[in-house]
Order: sequence, then structure tokens, then C-alpha cells
Amino acid sequence: VVFFWDERLDRERPITRERIALTARDQAFGRERAPQLARAELERRLVRVRAATEALCAELSPEDAALQSMPDASPAKWHLGHTTWFFETFVLRALPRFRAFSPDYAYLFNSYYESIGPHLRRDARGLLSRPSLAEVYEYRSVVTAQLLELIEAGRGDWDVLGPRIELGLHHEEQHQELLLTDIKHLFAQNPLQPAYRLPGRTHNAGPAPALGFKVHAGGLLPIGKQGDGFVFDNERPEHLHFLAPYALGDRLITNAEYLEFVRDSGYERPELWLSDGTRWLSAQKISLPLYWQEAGEQSWAAFTLAGLLPLNPSDPVCHVSYYEADAYARWAGARLPTEAEWENAARHQAVRGNLLESGEFQPRPVEPGESQFFGDTWEWTQSAYAPYPGYVPPAGALGEYNAKFMCNQQVLRGGSCVTPSEHIRASYRNFFGPETRWQFAGIRLARNT
Amino acid sequence: VVFFWDERLDRERPITRERIALTARDQAFGRERAPQLARAELERRLVRVRAATEALCAELSPEDAALQSMPDASPAKWHLGHTTWFFETFVLRALPRFRAFSPDYAYLFNSYYESIGPHLRRDARGLLSRPSLAEVYEYRSVVTAQLLELIEAGRGDWDVLGPRIELGLHHEEQHQELLLTDIKHLFAQNPLQPAYRLPGRTHNAGPAPALGFKVHAGGLLPIGKQGDGFVFDNERPEHLHFLAPYALGDRLITNAEYLEFVRDSGYERPELWLSDGTRWLSAQKISLPLYWQEAGEQSWAAFTLAGLLPLNPSDPVCHVSYYEADAYARWAGARLPTEAEWENAARHQAVRGNLLESGEFQPRPVEPGESQFFGDTWEWTQSAYAPYPGYVPPAGALGEYNAKFMCNQQVLRGGSCVTPSEHIRASYRNFFGPETRWQFAGIRLARNT
Amino acid sequence: VVFFWDERLDRERPITRERIALTARDQAFGRERAPQLARAELERRLVRVRAATEALCAELSPEDAALQSMPDASPAKWHLGHTTWFFETFVLRALPRFRAFSPDYAYLFNSYYESIGPHLRRDARGLLSRPSLAEVYEYRSVVTAQLLELIEAGRGDWDVLGPRIELGLHHEEQHQELLLTDIKHLFAQNPLQPAYRLPGRTHNAGPAPALGFKVHAGGLLPIGKQGDGFVFDNERPEHLHFLAPYALGDRLITNAEYLEFVRDSGYERPELWLSDGTRWLSAQKISLPLYWQEAGEQSWAAFTLAGLLPLNPSDPVCHVSYYEADAYARWAGARLPTEAEWENAARHQAVRGNLLESGEFQPRPVEPGESQFFGDTWEWTQSAYAPYPGYVPPAGALGEYNAKFMCNQQVLRGGSCVTPSEHIRASYRNFFGPETRWQFAGIRLARNT
Amino acid sequence: VVFFWDERLDRERPITRERIALTARDQAFGRERAPQLARAELERRLVRVRAATEALCAELSPEDAALQSMPDASPAKWHLGHTTWFFETFVLRALPRFRAFSPDYAYLFNSYYESIGPHLRRDARGLLSRPSLAEVYEYRSVVTAQLLELIEAGRGDWDVLGPRIELGLHHEEQHQELLLTDIKHLFAQNPLQPAYRLPGRTHNAGPAPALGFKVHAGGLLPIGKQGDGFVFDNERPEHLHFLAPYALGDRLITNAEYLEFVRDSGYERPELWLSDGTRWLSAQKISLPLYWQEAGEQSWAAFTLAGLLPLNPSDPVCHVSYYEADAYARWAGARLPTEAEWENAARHQAVRGNLLESGEFQPRPVEPGESQFFGDTWEWTQSAYAPYPGYVPPAGALGEYNAKFMCNQQVLRGGSCVTPSEHIRASYRNFFGPETRWQFAGIRLARNT
Repeated sequence: VVFFWDERLDRERPITRERIALTARDQAFGRERAPQLARAELERRLVRVRAATEALCAELSPEDAALQSMPDASPAKWHLGHTTWFFETFVLRALPRFRAFSPDYAYLFNSYYESIGPHLRRDARGLLSRPSLAEVYEYRSVVTAQLLELIEAGRGDWDVLGPRIELGLHHEEQHQELLLTDIKHLFAQNPLQPAYRLPGRTHNAGPAPALGFKVHAGGLLPIGKQGDGFVFDNERPEHLHFLAPYALGDRLITNAEYLEFVRDSGYERPELWLSDGTRWLSAQKISLPLYWQEAGEQSWAAFTLAGLLPLNPSDPVCHVSYYEADAYARWAGARLPTEAEWENAARHQAVRGNLLESGEFQPRPVEPGESQFFGDTWEWTQSAYAPYPGYVPPAGALGEYNAKFMCNQQVLRGGSCVTPSEHIRASYRNFFGPETRWQFAGIRLARNT
Repeated sequence: VVFFWDERLDRERPITRERIALTARDQAFGRERAPQLARAELERRLVRVRAATEALCAELSPEDAALQSMPDASPAKWHLGHTTWFFETFVLRALPRFRAFSPDYAYLFNSYYESIGPHLRRDARGLLSRPSLAEVYEYRSVVTAQLLELIEAGRGDWDVLGPRIELGLHHEEQHQELLLTDIKHLFAQNPLQPAYRLPGRTHNAGPAPALGFKVHAGGLLPIGKQGDGFVFDNERPEHLHFLAPYALGDRLITNAEYLEFVRDSGYERPELWLSDGTRWLSAQKISLPLYWQEAGEQSWAAFTLAGLLPLNPSDPVCHVSYYEADAYARWAGARLPTEAEWENAARHQAVRGNLLESGEFQPRPVEPGESQFFGDTWEWTQSAYAPYPGYVPPAGALGEYNAKFMCNQQVLRGGSCVTPSEHIRASYRNFFGPETRWQFAGIRLARNT
Repeated sequence: VVFFWDERLDRERPITRERIALTARDQAFGRERAPQLARAELERRLVRVRAATEALCAELSPEDAALQSMPDASPAKWHLGHTTWFFETFVLRALPRFRAFSPDYAYLFNSYYESIGPHLRRDARGLLSRPSLAEVYEYRSVVTAQLLELIEAGRGDWDVLGPRIELGLHHEEQHQELLLTDIKHLFAQNPLQPAYRLPGRTHNAGPAPALGFKVHAGGLLPIGKQGDGFVFDNERPEHLHFLAPYALGDRLITNAEYLEFVRDSGYERPELWLSDGTRWLSAQKISLPLYWQEAGEQSWAAFTLAGLLPLNPSDPVCHVSYYEADAYARWAGARLPTEAEWENAARHQAVRGNLLESGEFQPRPVEPGESQFFGDTWEWTQSAYAPYPGYVPPAGALGEYNAKFMCNQQVLRGGSCVTPSEHIRASYRNFFGPETRWQFAGIRLARNT
Repeated sequence: VVFFWDERLDRERPITRERIALTARDQAFGRERAPQLARAELERRLVRVRAATEALCAELSPEDAALQSMPDASPAKWHLGHTTWFFETFVLRALPRFRAFSPDYAYLFNSYYESIGPHLRRDARGLLSRPSLAEVYEYRSVVTAQLLELIEAGRGDWDVLGPRIELGLHHEEQHQELLLTDIKHLFAQNPLQPAYRLPGRTHNAGPAPALGFKVHAGGLLPIGKQGDGFVFDNERPEHLHFLAPYALGDRLITNAEYLEFVRDSGYERPELWLSDGTRWLSAQKISLPLYWQEAGEQSWAAFTLAGLLPLNPSDPVCHVSYYEADAYARWAGARLPTEAEWENAARHQAVRGNLLESGEFQPRPVEPGESQFFGDTWEWTQSAYAPYPGYVPPAGALGEYNAKFMCNQQVLRGGSCVTPSEHIRASYRNFFGPETRWQFAGIRLARNT
């Protein structure tokens, strides 16, 4: 036996070698080996998720939906098409007598699945004035209808197709978030600074409570996939990880706290920055978080999905790169958490918070009792994105979904104010390059004890 | 007296020193010192030119009109707005009680007039989903109406405003051509290779007549502005230029002729290329004219405004850079003409040919008796774009129209199949960087005698 | 208590919480808190290490020593100066009445210590024809003499200076390796392909023994600093890490094995590559390891420090990037080891192998009984370079030595054929960007069990 | 007959059509059709020119001679080798039983003659630590000796070889200048700012006399090759060019005058700059001439071949780009001359001035009676580098000497303080890209009358 520290029981418990071995064998993507969602439930979710994506685009003009503001961001129209192509390719194409909606779409809407075939290069997604937005909506309707028929008629190998439909839904939810961050980036480039939506409710602008740190005992702890719900392949297998004792901040860092760093010349002090960060600062001429603007003497504004608004000091700071998060932590005498530290702390918390469904589309001040593990902003961790011990990517093209990005990326945890609540969980691993800023990414501090 | 060779009379004629001095003083832009167009005529032209621009956009969707395919090209929506802003800025703003249609448009739609104020950088014109296409059409209507009212009411200083309206019309015609070449470039990037219009009539695909050379005697000859019609500042002053005897090809080079160069490894033989051309070939991996594609064994297609079509061997070759035109000429044992050689030959020809009004939007084979000086393709000259002797740019912001580009550009002459016929004349000087290919630019050969 | 698996005893052993806590507090750099080297021993090593660096440069002309072949590589003259500046700055400058050898050298020879002051940018090291090589040798002599005098006279605070001298020696050994890899890169750019040295002895070119895998049981295991010898800060603190069972290849991958991958179109199959790797391949047009050349039909040569030599199939493959190592492993149905897996396997092995002192300066075929953990080539691991749990960087400028590079780098283990044997140990963590190829870096495979 | 204005006689003179035709046929390079230099004279010049090059390198260390500070500049060692290769290739190789000094040198020391064979890319000239400087000197000695023997023994076809040796001497003189400007650039990159030589004599620092303008009547005038002396192919053929009346500044613009432009915010006023110039200023962050530094409150220094020296206000301004020269001229209410205007004014002047032989290696203040047409600084003209009417490049590889650069370059006239006096003449056409600054290039103003 190997012992581990069970944080809930606050004592050691033995782990059998059998369990260790077992976790290493549990390699399937999504639910493929797990109890499946009932057809009726899947049908309900399909209708709901597809409609939710379209609802997010309801106010976009054809032009809004067609433009690409940078290679990392995609036009809304492309998101609408790509999520549809994903279902068509991984579900409908497996059926007999399959006919593609359009022979060209496999090229246009494949993102990066080399095993499927050649595809449009990423930075050319904004060159597609055709197909029109209307044609893409037509594509969506046809594919959604085909999926519903498939579910109802029970055509095809359900053991394969059922899990793939579920995967397609999680994939589409992922793109709901990207669609919003991409629109925000596009609108931010427009000198008119248009608003995607009306401002949400005003939050009490009182200062955040003093930052506290909660100590965790560590030990030999389970990390990764929990229970029977859907997870991505990169959350598998559940495995043991040894953690020394550590402490985590009890809320996210606020704009007010980050402003102290700015005013203390945080951006000009190389001793606070990673070497790559120093280079990035100077090449990109960065001195503030993305979307911040000076609005006068000691006064700041930030571009939001509701247009340019005064910076609320008690909101969590957002749209910072890993380099900025890391430098802030060093300046604050702390560090960023590892992903295991974060997950261990979040594992027993309810998934609740300022997520997409709150309708705020902006981080909001912490409320009494909240720890902000879920929602508001993704939290940068000091962990590079890497396979879990025993990880084996899914066979075929779906193996490209996550595995090939396991280099030069940092893991982020916890979801943001534009993450659908069904999409997030404690074991969820998001990842972006350390210089990335257009996602809603913020800062939670950690410390050694 | 100084004598010069009068080609029409085929003998020398004296030029008085007075005339030389006079040309050097004739520095005004457009018609400012010339007999003005009558108000009624100007009104008719205003209505016609503005409508023509809009007619060219009739089939464009809001998405087609919003995208930018490269920094050199602008979205159609931007052309629609910029040509309107030009009138608003240089004509309406001079009026008392002027109010701008929108305070933001001066920033969005100013192209490069630094004296007017700051402006959007060129490569960001494709980031404007707002204002919408509909709003830009509204802008056009309001400004056109204000201009018509101004003409009718005779408000303002007509000696200044009349010539500026005329300038604005020529400016807008210039953008009609750019609008089409930019749309062609955008559509060519789209893997769907959409067509802007239906194919035109099919031309007799018989081979072009053998290329001949017409000898010109040269002499001390007048170059630049002729007569009283509108000209741009860069066509002034009319001045004398001495030309040694030379010969010019009697038609444009065809696709068939250019294919011989390609098949003779023309692109791989550095001795045929300028040094900068060799570097450009290798950096850009160029081995064919822009828009050409191999369509099978010894078979070629070209993307056109009517979509992808088989290459017609007897059409003039088009969409080549100066480097390609120059290398072709060297391969053919000839050279490119200077702009003075070209102008001297074209000066006494009628402005007739395959211009915008032919509705072809593609170069077409030469017809018996034609020399193709006007229309079909612009013709690269070996002359760098430079001020004429005695040139003085107009005062104020309009001095930026042409003068500040007099470096690193080659002159092109003669107009193309998308140039409005009212816009072209023998003295017209177009200019682009030597690596430029998205304009309809082709080749006429020259030789020493 | 927490239990861990002791591989030597092949059973579990308890680890006291005290020991865990203790390791977390042991944060000093080098030996600062450890029993110190005796003065006499330090003096002997100082003389030996300084002389060894100079011996490596004995055959270099002033020109060889001055050129910089790429921003990542430094001229030999700069290495000679920089290692001397390191002693001057961190040891001699702490003495009363210190006078710098030259006021300019702090700017020229500071590599990246921002806390010390401004410094020459990295890619400008090859612009220094002055100071001459002779002047830099003079600089070396003076500083070495001052250090020897300091050691003998016992001046200064020995508790600080003694460990810093030892650190300086390890720093200089690190640069001995870089000096050789940088010279190799420089000579490889020269079309004359000059040799730095005569070829070493010829190795039996028989095929390598079949690759086997040795299984390791894993468990909760100590990682990092062992015993009392010198270590860098990034090897600290010793800490526990849980490893699932795994297997490691019993030798390095050979050129012959890698050639099979090449011939199987390994470089053209995107499913084998990380996404960043695919991009790198295409941007850099990579299709072979660095320094390989086709030498005829199915015949290969490689540039070495002894000039261009036929590729020996049974030598370990070398000068591959992380991307290539990772793709090879995937093609071979295996993966790269984590750094903990590697260290756990190497921890109880003697530090023996083809290191700098063998004088080969090239990897050589495995010999019976050898596992090649130390020497021949560095071994890419799948671990991103990150701080160990509880790591705290040294205070002051020495904190910049290692800590600020903990992003976008992969860890390599085991030393190479140009690593001084005193410099390497099981816990040693080297790190380079995943695209790096000019170091002697190769491949060991790992597998799940 | 055609008449032209003879400025010397101040009246018109007829030019026969025969003469016009004749100039168009006179296409040979150098003296190939001209009376040749006597063998004895050629021998004397060969010895003198080769020795002069080596004398310029006498104080350079092997390291000084090996480094390359930017792609446009070459190491001194490369200049020494390349000028030797030129003789070997174009003279010695034509002899029976020719054996190259080294088979590799054709690759290393060919600059850009594609017809000769492949060659090292320009930006890799600084990667050649081998051959050593000593080996290159050995190469020089051997080739010089072979040339002397050839001249004495009268081997080979003297009608071909004699002119080629003369061409080789002019080629080597051209490289003497480049060698000095390249060393200056290299030393300027070194933070030690070393001096190539001791400062020259101090010049009376009194202010320059007020700038005057001398009027030229213009007319139909001869341009290009004069008399029987050596000229490059690009100076041919002599031809007629019509010039309107113009005026030229009677001396070069001084540092003091240029400083007024700087203080008047000349660098920040876009209306003064060409469009490409504005882009260049902002991309390169330019606000002063190359080598200028602020040395305190309203005090300036400039890096020279004698190290960093206070800026002498009455020295001609130097190391400015075409963009800066053009902007200065516009600011001063003037313009730059065309090359024909310059040549017509200089054609009847003696070649005298501050050239290489003065030993100053820096521009110096104008002296009474001087017009500074020759020496001090090259003078930017507004003429793009283009073939003269009737120009035909020499056959074979020597056709690459000048012709392939006739695009994107501006012509400079008059030579500089580091041009050998034998090398310059009124018809000499130097050419560099408009952004070039490391040559000794300055400003003479022109005006319309």
C-alpha cells in the first residue's frame, strides 16, 4: 500500500496499488466508457446549446460576424460554422449515405484537425465574406435537424455517436466563450468602441475585504477526473500527486490591488519579471492590462462588452498575461498556484459563481462568503500544460483536440464570466500561451507555508 | 530660341524661352487656373459619378464590403466612406455653419492627409464592422445632397469650391478602380473563389497578330498637361524633354507570349532580373503572375472578377509586378519604355479602348487597328515616379495628394479595363511600388533604334 | 508519517513530516549553508577550471574567438570575459578597495543580470572587435591572480565569498560547454567547414544492441538535491514526488533508429508532431537534425567539431529539438520521460560516461553494460522547466541566475560529451527552448507500464 | 540639326544627328574601345592601388577585419579578398593553365555575380573566421604578383585583359571607400567607441559663409561620359538632356544649418517628409543623423573614424538618408538637384577637394572660393538610378556590375572625404537606397529660377 493524505478526513488513508493501476488504464475521451446520457436528455441539451450559441449572436450584424481582429481570434461566423462542422464530421459523417451540406466547408471550417484533411490557415478566417452569415445559419439548422433525427431514430452506433454528440456540445460551449472574447477584441479595435450589449447592473463599489490565505495540508492526493460526468481527455486519468502544504488566496486580486503594482512601477522593474516577460513587455510596449485606458489624472477606464466603462476598483483584475500575473505575484511576495494546488482546493467546492448565465459578461466584486474559484476570471497557474501521468490521447482525429498543444502553454483554471456553467468543473484544464491576454484571465495568489 | 522636333510635323520647330518660363509657372492643381466647368455640367457629373460608385457595389453583401484582404487593399465600405469624406473635408468644411455628419468619420475615413489630423492606420480598415454599410450609404446620401445644394445655391467661394468638387470627382473615379481591384483581391483569397459578376462575352481566341515595333523620331518634345482639361498636379507643368529615337511595341504582350517566358525558365534565371526582383521572387516564392493557377498538364486558369476562368492566350498578360515586366522585356531582347516615350507616342491618340465602361472588367485581345494604349492594362514604365521639372505641389493638405509618394514607385501609364474613361488621358501618371501586382498592370515593350 | 517507495530497498519507508518541512526551508544557493570546500581544495579547483577554459581556446584564432553565429550563441572571447566578470562582480567587488579591471567591462560582459546594471544586448556580442583577445586574456590573468590572493590571504567574509567562488567555478564549467557548442555552430556556418580539432578514435561501427526498457516501480520518492555537494538553486529543495510505475529505455536512441523515422516520412506526418512543432518545421524548413547533410544516395554526413564526417549509425542521435525528440518518441510508440522519472532512475548510478574529459567531443556508441545516463547527449524530458515546490530564489542578483527562465523551456538531463564531469549529477537541471538544436541534445524513450 | 544650349559659350550650338546616333552606339565598359593605358602606367597603378588598400588596413586587428556590423556592411577581410577575387575571376581566369588560389574562394568572395556561380549570402560575410586575415593577405600577394607578371609578359589577349585590369583597379578603389565606411559603422556599434585613427587637424570653427545660389541657364545639354578617361558602363552613353533654368547652392549644407531644422521640430512634421520617409522615421525611431549623439544641454557629438568628437557646426552635415536630405530641402524652401543639374554644373570644374588623399577622413568646412562639388560628402540627388537613354549593359557577368541595381535607388554625386581622387569625376554615378545612412552622404540644395 501507499498512503495519502485525505484532506476531507484530515488523516492518511491507504491507496491500493490496484487503484493506481486502474486510473492509468482509464483513458477514454468524454464519457465513452461512462454511463451515457439518456437520449432524451441529450436531445434537450442539443437544442439548448445550439440555441444558446445563436442567441449570443443575435445582435451581431453580418459585418460584426465576419471580421477577424487578429490571428488568435476568429469571426463569429466562423465559430458558428466550425461548431457545426464538428458535429457533421465526427457524428453525421459516420452514418451511411452521409452527404455533406457543402463540399467546401470541410476546408473552411476545420480548425486544426490534420488527420481530417487540409484546412484554411488560421489567420485567413477573416477573409471569408462568403458563405454569408445567412448561409451559415442555414448550415446550422440543417445539421441540428439531422442530429435530432439521428438521436430520435437511434441511427448509427449509439455507443460511439452518443458520446460524440455530448463531446460536440462541450466543444460548442467552449466556442461560446471564445465567440464572446473574440467579439470583445474586435470591438476594442474599432475607434468607435461599440458596445455588444447594454451595461449590466452596477455593483456596490465598496473596497474588497482584505485578502486572506487559506492553508491546505497537502499530502498524496487525487487529481483529475472525478465521478462519472463528462470530462475532456486531458483531465484523465485520475492520478495521485504529492503536495507539500500550501496556502491559497481566498479571493481573486482586484483592480485596486493591481493598480498599486502599476503605481509602484511594477512594469518597469525587471527583477519582478520572467526573462521572456521582459522581452514581451518591451517588444509589445505593454504597461497596463489589455483594454485599460488612462481616462484622466489618476483615473482609468476599461473597454468591456458594454463599451468603455470606468474601472471599478473592486472588480477582479482581468485580461492580464501570465507574465503580468507572475510579476504581480512576485511583487506581492507570493507566487501563482500550481494547477494541482488549485484543483485540490476547488475539488470539494460547488460550481457556483459569476458564469455566463449570470448575464454580466464582466467580473464582479467578491461577495461575502465567496471564494471566486469558479467564474469571474480564469486563474493563471504556474503549471505548464502537460499530459497527466498515464495519459493516452484518443485514437484518430479526436486525439488532436487537446494533446498536440502540450508545449509552451500555461494552464488556467476555474472558468470566467463568459464560461457556460455546465462547461466548468474543478478538474477542467484550460490552456493558453503565456503572452495571451484577450481571454478573461486573472490572478489568485499562493504561498508556501 | 531652342528648337524641338515636332513629331506631328516631322520637323523642328522653335520653342520660345517665354513658353518654357511659362510652363514652369503653371503650377495649380486641377483646373484652379483653367476655365471652369459650368455648374450644370458639374452637377450632372456629380450625380453620375456618385451613382456609378454605388452601382459597382450593388451586388456586394455587407460582409463583402467590410473585409480587407491585405494592408494595400481597402474594404469597399471604406472606399464609399473615404470618397465622401474627401468632399466633406475639402468642399463642405469650407462653408460657414458646417457640421460634420459624424465627428468620428474624420478619423476613420482620412486616408493619409497628415495636415488634416490623425487617422486610422491603413491596415486597420478591415476592423470596422461599425459603421455599418447602411450607415455609410446614409453618409453618402447626405453629403451628395449637400454638394448638390451648394452647386445650385452657389454658396461659398466658387473659384475655390468648383475646382475642388471637380477634383473630388476625379478622386472618386480613381477609387472606383481601386474598389474593383480590392474586391478582386479579396475574392481571390476566398477558397470558394466567388465571382463578383457574370463572365463577359467570349472573345475570339485566335492568336494575336505578330508583335511589331513603331519607330518614333524623338527630339525635344513637350511632356505633361495638354490643353485645358482637368489634370492632377503631378502632370504639371508641361515641359520639354529630349528623347533619342526609339521604338514601341504596337500592342500589349499577351498571355501566350508570357507563357513562353515562363516555360523558358524565365523565373529561375537571375541574369534576367533586377537584384531587388531576385530577392522578391525568393522571399515571396513567386513563379507565375498573380491570380494564375496551373489547371492541369500545360493548362492554366486565372482568377477574374467573373471567377476562375481558363487563361485566354491572346488576352494581354496582367497582374505582373514591375520586376516581372522588366525581366520579361530583358528576356525578349527589349526593354520597358520610359514614361516620356510612352506619353509622346500616346499624345496624339484618341482615348479609346477597353475601359471600365466596356463592362468587360478583364483585358481582351487586341483588335485590328488597335494599339491598346488606353485601357486593358496599365503599362509599367522604367521611369521612377518623380516631380516634373518646375513642379510645385499645391498648398495645404491637397499637397499630400501626390507629392509625398515620389520615391520608390514606378510610373504606369494608359489606364486599365477598370479605369473610368473620363479619368484617363495621355499625360496621366499612375504609380505603384515595383512589387505591386493586384492592379491590372501589363507590359508594352520598347527598343532603341 | 507519509510513506514512500524506496527503490533501492524495493519497499516502502516512512518520511517524517519534519523532513518534508526541512527540505522546504533549505533554500540557499550552492553550498552557502553546507560544509564548505577547504581553501586549498578551492584553490586547486580554481587553477584547474580557469586553465581548462583557456586550454579549450588554445587553437582558436582571434577571429574564431570574436564571431557570433546567431543571437543564442556567444563568441569564445565573450565567454572568456563573462566568466571572469562573474568572479569580479560576485566575489572581488565585495572586497574593500575594489577597483574594476576596466570600467567598461561591466557593460560588455554582464549577460543578463539586470540588478547589476545595464548590459550589452545579447545579439551584439559579435560586434566587439575590441577589447582584443589578448586584452581579455590579460583580464583573466589579473582576476585569477586576485582570486588566488583572496583565497590565500583569507580576505573578506569567507562564509559568503567561499561559496561564491565555488559557484563561479560551476558557472565557468557551464560556459566551457557553451563555448564548444557555440564554436561548433560558428564553424558549421563557414562554407569551408573547418575542424576545431582532429577526429577522435574510430568506434566499432557495429549496430547497437536492441533497445530494452527497464521498469521502475515508482512511489512517493525524493527528488532534487542529494547529499552535501554543490547544487544550483533550481535543484532545491529536495522534495517528494509521486511517480506511477514506468519504464525507461536502457540506452539513447541511435542515428540508425532516427533514420528509420526520417525514411518513414516522420517529418511530413503532422499527427506525430506537437502543434508548435508543425509550425516550426514549416517556418524553418526542417527535415533533418541540425548538422546532418545528405552525402549521396542513402548516405549521410554530419558536421562535428572534427569537421564533416560520415554519419555513424550506432552513435546516439544528437542536435535534435524537443519537437523532434517528442515526434520521434510518438512515432516509436513511446514517449519522453518526465524529469522526475529520469532523476529517479539516475539517482543511484555513478556519474560516468562520455563527458568532456573523454576528449571525444562527439557522442559515441553505447558499450556493453552502459546505460548512457551521463554524457553523450543531454536528454530531452517532457517536463517544462518550473520551480520545485518550496523553491525560493537566492536574494539579490544571483536570484536571476536560474529563476527568471522558468517559462517556455524544457528540462534536459544527464550532460553531454562536452559537459565537464565535475559539473554533472543526477539532480542537475539543464533547460532550453523546445526549438533549440545547437546543444548536444538527444533522446531516451519512456513508457507507461 | 538639333540645337542645344552651350553653357560655356552661353549660346546655342547645333548637334548633328550623327553625334546623337553615335553616342547611342558607344556602349563598352570602361576603356574597352578607348585608347588604353600604357602597360607601364597600368603596372604602376596596380602596385599603388593594391598597396593603398592594404595601407588602409594596417591598423586593423584580425578581429577588426573579421566582423560584420550589418548586412549592408562587409568585413575588411572580405573586401581584401573580394577585390582580389575580382582580378582573379575577370583577368587571370581567362589565361590558359589558370589555377585558382583556392577552390573555395569563388564561393566566399563572389559578391553578387550570379552568372559566375553560387556565392555566400551577403549577411553571412561576418561568419568567416577562416580563411584567416593572414591567408587573405597571402591570397592578395599571389594574385598581385600574377597580375604583374601578366602585364610584363604580355600574356593573354591584351585588348580584353588590359581594360579589365583597369576596371579591377577602379573596382578596388570603390571598395577602399566601402572598407572605411564599414569600419566606421562597426566601431560605432562598439560601446568602447574605438578610434580607427588619430584625429586630423582642427579646422577653424568659424561659421560658414552665407549660402548663395548660382543660376544655370539650362538648355539641351550633354550628360554622361566625357573625353577618353575610364568610366563605368552606367555613365554611358553620353547623351543629350534638356534642362530648364535652375540654381544650385554654392556649398554643402552645414551641421549648424541642419541643427536649425532639428530644433524646428523638423523630424516631427510629417508635411516635410516623403510618405516612405515618415514610415522609416517611425519604424527606426530616427530623430538625428546617424552617429550624432546628444552630449549635454544643446551640445552634440558625432562618432568619427577618430572616435567620438564634438560636432563642428561649420562641417558639412553627413550620414543623412535621402529622406532626411529631402525633408531638409523642403523645410529650407528648396529642393534637391537632379543628377543632370548637378553634372551640368560640375562638368567644367576641376576634380579637387577633401578626398581620401587629404587624410582627413571627415568632411571639413568650406574654404573661400570652394564649391565642394567634389569630396567631403556625396550629394543626394532627386534622381532615381536608371539607365541612360541607349544604355546597354556589358555582355556576360560584368553586366551585373551596375545594371541590376537600377530600381529603388537614388543617385549620389561628387564623392566624399573617403573617395580616392582618381576614382571620382563629374559623370560618376553612385547609388544607394533612400534609407541608407552609413555612407558619407550630405546635402546640396537646388531651386527653380
